[in-house]
Order: sequence, then structure tokens, then C-alpha cells
Amino acid sequence: MKSKVVSFLIKCPDQKGLVAKITSFFYEKGFNIVSSQQYVNAIENTYFMRIRLNADGTTLSKKELESSFLELATPLNIDWSVNYDDKKQNVAIMVSHTSHNLYDLLERSKEGRLDCNVKMIISNHDKLRYIANMFHIPFHYLPVTKETKLEQEAQVKELLDASDIDLIIMARYMQILSADFINHYPEKIINIHHSFLPAFQGANPYRKAYERGVKLIGATAHYATVDLDEGPIIEQDVKPVTHESTPTTLKRIGADIEKLVLARAVKNHLNHQIIVSGNRAIVFPEAGE
Amino acid sequence: MKSKVVSFLIKCPDQKGLVAKITSFFYEKGFNIVSSQQYVNAIENTYFMRIRLNADGTTLSKKELESSFLELATPLNIDWSVNYDDKKQNVAIMVSHTSHNLYDLLERSKEGRLDCNVKMIISNHDKLRYIANMFHIPFHYLPVTKETKLEQEAQVKELLDASDIDLIIMARYMQILSADFINHYPEKIINIHHSFLPAFQGANPYRKAYERGVKLIGATAHYATVDLDEGPIIEQDVKPVTHESTPTTLKRIGADIEKLVLARAVKNHLNHQIIVSGNRAIVFPEAGE
Amino acid sequence: MKSKVVSFLIKCPDQKGLVAKITSFFYEKGFNIVSSQQYVNAIENTYFMRIRLNADGTTLSKKELESSFLELATPLNIDWSVNYDDKKQNVAIMVSHTSHNLYDLLERSKEGRLDCNVKMIISNHDKLRYIANMFHIPFHYLPVTKETKLEQEAQVKELLDASDIDLIIMARYMQILSADFINHYPEKIINIHHSFLPAFQGANPYRKAYERGVKLIGATAHYATVDLDEGPIIEQDVKPVTHESTPTTLKRIGADIEKLVLARAVKNHLNHQIIVSGNRAIVFPEAGE
Amino acid sequence: MKSKVVSFLIKCPDQKGLVAKITSFFYEKGFNIVSSQQYVNAIENTYFMRIRLNADGTTLSKKELESSFLELATPLNIDWSVNYDDKKQNVAIMVSHTSHNLYDLLERSKEGRLDCNVKMIISNHDKLRYIANMFHIPFHYLPVTKETKLEQEAQVKELLDASDIDLIIMARYMQILSADFINHYPEKIINIHHSFLPAFQGANPYRKAYERGVKLIGATAHYATVDLDEGPIIEQDVKPVTHESTPTTLKRIGADIEKLVLARAVKNHLNHQIIVSGNRAIVFPEAGE
Repeated sequence: MKSKVVSFLIKCPDQKGLVAKITSFFYEKGFNIVSSQQYVNAIENTYFMRIRLNADGTTLSKKELESSFLELATPLNIDWSVNYDDKKQNVAIMVSHTSHNLYDLLERSKEGRLDCNVKMIISNHDKLRYIANMFHIPFHYLPVTKETKLEQEAQVKELLDASDIDLIIMARYMQILSADFINHYPEKIINIHHSFLPAFQGANPYRKAYERGVKLIGATAHYATVDLDEGPIIEQDVKPVTHESTPTTLKRIGADIEKLVLARAVKNHLNHQIIVSGNRAIVFPEAGE
Repeated sequence: MKSKVVSFLIKCPDQKGLVAKITSFFYEKGFNIVSSQQYVNAIENTYFMRIRLNADGTTLSKKELESSFLELATPLNIDWSVNYDDKKQNVAIMVSHTSHNLYDLLERSKEGRLDCNVKMIISNHDKLRYIANMFHIPFHYLPVTKETKLEQEAQVKELLDASDIDLIIMARYMQILSADFINHYPEKIINIHHSFLPAFQGANPYRKAYERGVKLIGATAHYATVDLDEGPIIEQDVKPVTHESTPTTLKRIGADIEKLVLARAVKNHLNHQIIVSGNRAIVFPEAGE
Repeated sequence: MKSKVVSFLIKCPDQKGLVAKITSFFYEKGFNIVSSQQYVNAIENTYFMRIRLNADGTTLSKKELESSFLELATPLNIDWSVNYDDKKQNVAIMVSHTSHNLYDLLERSKEGRLDCNVKMIISNHDKLRYIANMFHIPFHYLPVTKETKLEQEAQVKELLDASDIDLIIMARYMQILSADFINHYPEKIINIHHSFLPAFQGANPYRKAYERGVKLIGATAHYATVDLDEGPIIEQDVKPVTHESTPTTLKRIGADIEKLVLARAVKNHLNHQIIVSGNRAIVFPEAGE
Repeated sequence: MKSKVVSFLIKCPDQKGLVAKITSFFYEKGFNIVSSQQYVNAIENTYFMRIRLNADGTTLSKKELESSFLELATPLNIDWSVNYDDKKQNVAIMVSHTSHNLYDLLERSKEGRLDCNVKMIISNHDKLRYIANMFHIPFHYLPVTKETKLEQEAQVKELLDASDIDLIIMARYMQILSADFINHYPEKIINIHHSFLPAFQGANPYRKAYERGVKLIGATAHYATVDLDEGPIIEQDVKPVTHESTPTTLKRIGADIEKLVLARAVKNHLNHQIIVSGNRAIVFPEAGE
């Protein structure tokens, strides 16, 4: 196998002997366990595992590994995915006017702090093209109106699919995507919302935060689902603010939180640390990675 | 004047020369400024001031001070209050079943970390009487049903007013107070809500937080107003949580946040650091106090 | 077995097949894994595991379990301990003048938020006896001078050992314990230091923090070792402060951090979440507990 | 006066009537107070003020303002500086190998989130030139050895002084500057140190943090003084970490803290919010700015 580290994400009904069976399987196939993380949801009797394996000692091909694991998984009712570290993931970033998340993602990608290929930037405005140019990333300007929405989304889809995009990052893309579009990319769209959800859903969260007089301001990165701002939460953070904060200063303070929250969520996704279960995201911490 | 430190809280339309006029007034009366804090809300063109004065150099009585300040204040449209440090405030605590906030407030008061007299504990359950006994505070058990609500509130009011209560702390009192009751004590009731408002208003916030899969859990101390959980926010804080957190662990983690948030809000109120303006609480930080 | 939940803490050289061997062992003995947490220190090639087992399905006695596990452990070079949930741990608290940590620990213990028996409070001053009385805990006043140090420590030791104490909490006990004393209770003494170690080791950290003009203040709970303030860190936290903070306000803000940091560290210890390795404490998070 | 907002930073012995005298002065000269912030250090009996004035109503020139204020200031022993908002400050950034702070500062400056002109980047390595090119900022590669240190510093000084640099940002410039150099730019050099000082002074703080097993990691922005890592602290922040963190992950987590801490410190400096007093930095919060 060309891959050195293989990661499995596993979800199944909790049952006796599960860990023993799974770990014995990998042991017998010649893998060494680099890290193994588990979570049991006792309320729903569900078992979750993230296991990273060193493939140096195995003679299996990817195909062989997957078909043998399937044999183990089927009777145990395991819902699983496997990822190999020899393939970089392809990423598309969608933006509107706001530049801070875009800079941050591009910088991290360029400097190797986000392990992915940013293949394109898509925007409904032409405003941020200069940033794409600075980082030499293709920029697609696809304006949109109520009338052209479906058509524009079709163009976006075509671009994404032509480049085999693994992850779409909505870095303050200020358009509501259609259910069709979102359902086409399940658990593959990460959105940043500029409040600590579920507070201040919808538009103008900083204005609303000012008016409510909250003493902390935040941001939330979540998977996009058909219900706007309701998808599984990956990362959240807040900073304290005071009565002195105006909507403008909240926006500025918030921008820094957004940057870090989005970058961490994207890193966790690219690094295969996340399993979605219903409307909750199981986010395993890094294991000495 | 018997008081050593005199604090004014001031709110008025912003206007030229305001600071000069106010500070000159106190200078001429023989006061020394211990600290002076200001906030201008430029959106609403309103000026707020908290000024603490050393009264050692003045010959004015409290009455004289107040009537002279009134002369200054009237033409400037100043809404003001004055507090003297020679009078300890009287506090009543209302609780239901939950003990952690009660212990914390009683301990701080007993040890001089909250500058007040806790005159009584009122509860709709008899469960926490033993804590009142440990701290030698009168405990009033006033059960309540839908039918007896108004009657019970009348009893509460009678108790509060007989003891000249300055501040009512709802330390997880799980009853909705009537509009009449609340309006009787404007900006004199502090409530602790066990979520980072406006997220998870109403009942069972920890259960809701679990179901929404949030990555942080919090608490909010606010003045009680007729609109439940909508009053001016005094203090908020959060802690990170993970998918491992169950409703039970969220409750436990949240309890620690509640304790600190409520205690800080009460301290800020007792220390005259707060001016309410509409639905926002201006909370001045301590000034070297 | 009377115990329902059995916890193992495991440390050994990392080696192939370890997880499979350990989990298969428990599976075959009839245990169900409630949670299993692992950590591999790749720098030192060491494997750490905390595994919690449901004993409902096993017929083994404690003795049988331990002797069979020993057979597994010896060839794998496993350093291990096992704990059963049918035995509450005995705790002694040592204090000097400061009351906030003491109240907090006693309240948590009384209300069942810390799973232990506080058997005694030991102090070199008589000042806090009234708190012991409030909570009906035996209080031992053992004054100490340079000359009587060894003698006093012998008295302390006698008290501790007579009550079969499992954990000693130094809740601001302002005496330096002798190496002999500390070595008698390895990984059984938790100390709270009122700074974010390694900053401000030694006496008067709040004064030093003020003088250095730091913008955050903190507390550290750690196992006591012979090198003062150098033991393995279990928990740390900080809060932002400003130039307005005096040594007195730093002390007050710090007290709240101390309380929570110490309580969390004690909870983690009592809950068998910690493995010490050299000077580092591996602190597993709660697993849905 | 061409300037619209004028800011004064004031430090003097505390004395009766100070606020009245200062605010009356500005009132009489036709200024309106935009914000006024004060701090009294009662331990050292020192008064600090940051006052921002709207100059629309004054007929004074800058020169007239300064000479009249001097007349007020001299008998009161006031140490003061004044800044006008019609002059953008010139900034130089010094770096070695690490890119994250550099990107962040350049992005903020380019996007108008830091109000300054970045005139140049100076480095002892040629590695980061491409970033300077992306942002079209002159890059000066000035290698240094022990032998050429004084000579190189002279070249640096020449570059800085030729461009009338107001602020030098050491964004991980891994060279110790000479006392001569530092004394030439008092309170004009901001350094970022990658630990929560005073913990882990000197080299390799992330390695040291790993070895000490701390549970939080941080960064500190401070004015450079002759005593390395001992200068007045402007901003600090930390993030929680766990035993899983390796020196490499600490570095990565720390990079995000560094970015925000340095950017906030630079913003506070450029915005004239800081007064240094001895080894402490008085950092006034933004006043609705």
C-alpha cells in the first residue's frame, strides 16, 4: 500500500466485544495502531471510533483491506469510511465581500498548515479577485440574482465536480444555497456563521448582539444542511466584549474569532476527525498529530 | 459626612463641557476624585458616568450634596443616583432545589467577599433549609401552586419589604414571577439563567444544548424583566465542552460557570458599577477597587 | 464482584497488538467496555490507557481478575492499577488561613459532586475550625515551627494513616512539607498554587504578578513533589486582568480560578483519570461520565 | 486644525482637582470630549489619562494647542504626548523564518484593519521575501553574524530612520538586539514572545512547555527593553492544551495565539491606547472606537 497512515471512521450500535474484534482485525492484518479514539453515546447506544493505522507492516492493497473490513463490518452493522494519507483533498472556497477568512485559509494552505489543494475560489462578487491573484488560485466570478439562482448553482456544481472537490468552504458566502445543492454535498460543505449558534441565527448577528447587549461574541463553524444555521456544529468560540463595543467593533473582534474557528473546523475535517451523527458532530481531538 | 467614599451613577444626553462641569462641581465642593469612568454611546448620543469621590475634604452633609447636585443636574437633563459606603445593602436570595449558587453566595457574604447583609432565603421548597441553617440565615418556605401564586408573591413581597431589601437574587428560583412582582423591584432582581443567552431561553437549557451539539456551555446573569430571559445582561461566561458531554455533565460543568457569573454580577451591582439603559446594562469595570 | 464499574490505568512500552491483546482479555473474561481511552507518547514510545469496564457479565472475583491481568501484564511490561467503584476514597484537606478552597471542596463533597469521604481537616492554624464545624468534619489544629516541623509532620502522618487516607489535598497549606513526608505519599498529594506555573513559583505570586504587569492571572493544581511547585501539572486556568488590578483584586479574581482548578484536579484524581509519567500528568477527559 | 480627532496621553502625580482642570482646559479651548479614560495607581499615587477630543469647534493650531497645554502641564508635573489623526504612522516589520505573524500583519494593514503604512520588512534571512512581494512591500535582507552584528544593526537603523519609522514590530525576529539599538527606540519596538511570560523566557518555549507538561499555552506581546523578555507586557493570551500536544502541535496552536496577541498589541499602540509606567503597560480599552 502506498499510504503510510490509514484512518478509519466507524459508527455502529454498541455491542460487547466490539473493540476487541476491530483491533484484533487490524492486528492480524499486520497494521500497527497509531492512535485509537472512541466515544460511546450511552443515550443512543451508539459506538464511534476513529482509528489511525500504520500500514508499514501490511501486505494488503487498499482494495483488499476494504473488502476484508467490509466482511467484519457487515454483521456488526458498522457504518464506516476509510482515508489514506497519500491523497491530498481538493478544496473550493466560496466567498462574497469579506476577506479575512479567505486570507487566512489561503495562507494556511500555502504554508502547509492546512493539508489540502485549494483548487478554486468562487464568488458572487468580483471584489476579492485580487486575493485569489496574490495566491495564484483560480477565481470564478458567478453573480447571482433571485432569477438566476438555480442556473448559477448549476454552474458552481459543474466547476466543483469538474475539479473533483472534496470539501466546499463557505467563508462568508452570503447566499442561501438551495436544498438541492446542499443535498448534493452531504457533510462536504462547511459554513462559518458569525455568532455562537443557536444565538443570533440568520442575518446581521453583530447588530443583533449589540442590541441584545451580550457580554460575549462568537462564531460557529458547522456543516451546511437544508435548515439554515442548524447543521451539526464542528467548532465554536467566543471572546468577552463590553458595553463599549459597537456593531463595528463587534464585527472586528468577531472577525478574529471567525478566522480561527473556521480554520480549526476545516483542519478537523481534512484530518478525518469528525463523524456526524444526527445533528451532532463527534469531533475527536488530535491524537499527538 | 459619615461616608468616606461616595459614588454617583450618571446618565444624560451627551453635550459639550459635561465632564468639565461635573468634575468642577465636585472639585469646588471639596471632593477628591477616586475614580471616574465614562462611556459615550454615540449611536444614541448618551453619556454615562460612574464617579467615586473621597469625602474627607468636604463639609457638606449628604442632604446638601444631593440638593446642590440636583441644581447642576436639572438643566443638563441628568438622570442620577448616589450611594454612600456607610450603608451595607440588604439582600434576599430566592432558590428552589439547586444548591451550588446558594452555597457560593452565602460563603462569599460570610467571608466578606460580597459586601452585603444576606437577610433571608426564600424558597418554594423546603429542601435547602439545612444550608440556611449552616450559615444562620432565616429561611422562609413558601410553597406555590398555580392557584396560590399571587398570594405567595404577596407573602414574599411582605417579607422583602419588611426587611428593607435592596437586592433580590434569584439563584435558580424555578418559578416565573408575575409582571406585578417584577415591576415592583425594577433593576433590583438579578436572575441567573443556565445558558449563554439568547441561546436556549426557557426551560431545560442543558438538555437543549446537548441536543443541539454545541461546543460551549454557558451562563448569564441578568436583571429580571417582564419578558422572561430578556432582561439586561450583566455577566456571561462559557466553557468549552465536547461531544462526550451528556446533559448530566453539561449540568455539572455549567454549575461552576453559573456560580462565578452570578457572584460577579451581584458584586458589580452591590458595588454600583451598573447603569441600565434600555435593554443594555453598562457595566463599568472595577477601578482599582 | 460487588463492583459494577472497574477502571484500569495502564502504562507500558508501545508495541504491536497491544490494544487487541488488552481488549480481547477483557472481552474473554466477560467484561463490557464502558469507555476506553488511549494516548501514545511517540517521543518516549510509551502507551497509556484508561479503560472502564462493566462487570455485570463476569464471574471473576477481584482477586481472580487481578491475578489473571498480572499474567497478561508481566510479559508486556505493563505498569498498571485497578480501581473498583464500590469503595469511596478517603480524603484529608490541609489548610492554613485561606477559606475559599476549603468551602468549595466541602460543599462539593457534601452535595455529592465530589465522590469521596472528607475524613479530616488539618491546619497549622486554628482559624478555619468554624468551617469544619459547619460541615461536621473533624478539625485537627497542629501548629508548627521550624523546630517542631518533623514532629508535627509525624503527627500529621499518624492522623492520615490511622484514617486510611487515599488523597491529601493541600488547599493553600502554607508550609513546605519535608521530602520524607512527600515521598511517603507519592501521587497522593494535590497542591494548588496560585499562579499559572511555571510563572511565579514560590511565595507571593499575586504581588509578583502585579509587579510584572501580566495581563492574565491563573492557578495550577499539581501533584506535590520534593521540588516545590515543580510537580506534574493536573489542571491550570487563567482569567484576563488589566492594569487596574491591584494585588488585592488579583487575589480576589485568582481565588475563583483556584477553586475551580483545584476542584477539577481532585475530581480527575478521584475518578482515576490521571496517569503520571515522569514530570507530566496524562489527564484523560471524562468519557461520558 | 486639519486633524479631526486629537488624543492626549497623560501621566502625573495624582492631585486634587486634576480632572476638573484638564477637562475645563479643553472645554474652554472649544474641544468636545469624545472619550476620556482614567486610571489612578493608588500604590504609586500616579494619575493616567487618555483623552480623545473632537477638534471641530476649536480655532487653535496644533502649535497653539501644544504650547497652551504645556502651560497647564508644567505646574502639575504632567508627562504628556499628543497625537493627531491626520498622520498615518510608519511601521517596519522584522522577521526571521516564521511567516504567520507576517501574513497576518500585512493582511490587516492592506485591508485597513491596522491603521498604518507598512514601509518595509527587514529580515536576517531571505526566506520570506515572497510574502513581501505578494503584498508589494520593500524587503531588506540583512544577514547577521556575531561579528557583523553592530554593523548590521547600523544598517537597520539607517533604513528605519530614513523612512521615519514610528513603530518597529519584531514578528519573530530571532536575534537579540543590542542595548544601543533598543535604547534608540524607546517604547517603539513591540516584540512577540511565544509563551505566557514570565513563564518560559528565552529560547524554545514550546519545547519547554511540553517538557513541563503545562495545560495551557500562550503568547505575550511586549515592548522590547534591554532585559530580554522583561519589557512591559501589552497583551497576553492562552489556549488550553492537553497531554496529547507534542512540541509540534504546541507550536501550531501557539501560532494562532501569537497572531492575535501581536495584532491586538500593535493596534493598541497605533491607536494611542498605551502609557508605559516603569515596567507596566497601562493599556486603555477602546472607547467605542
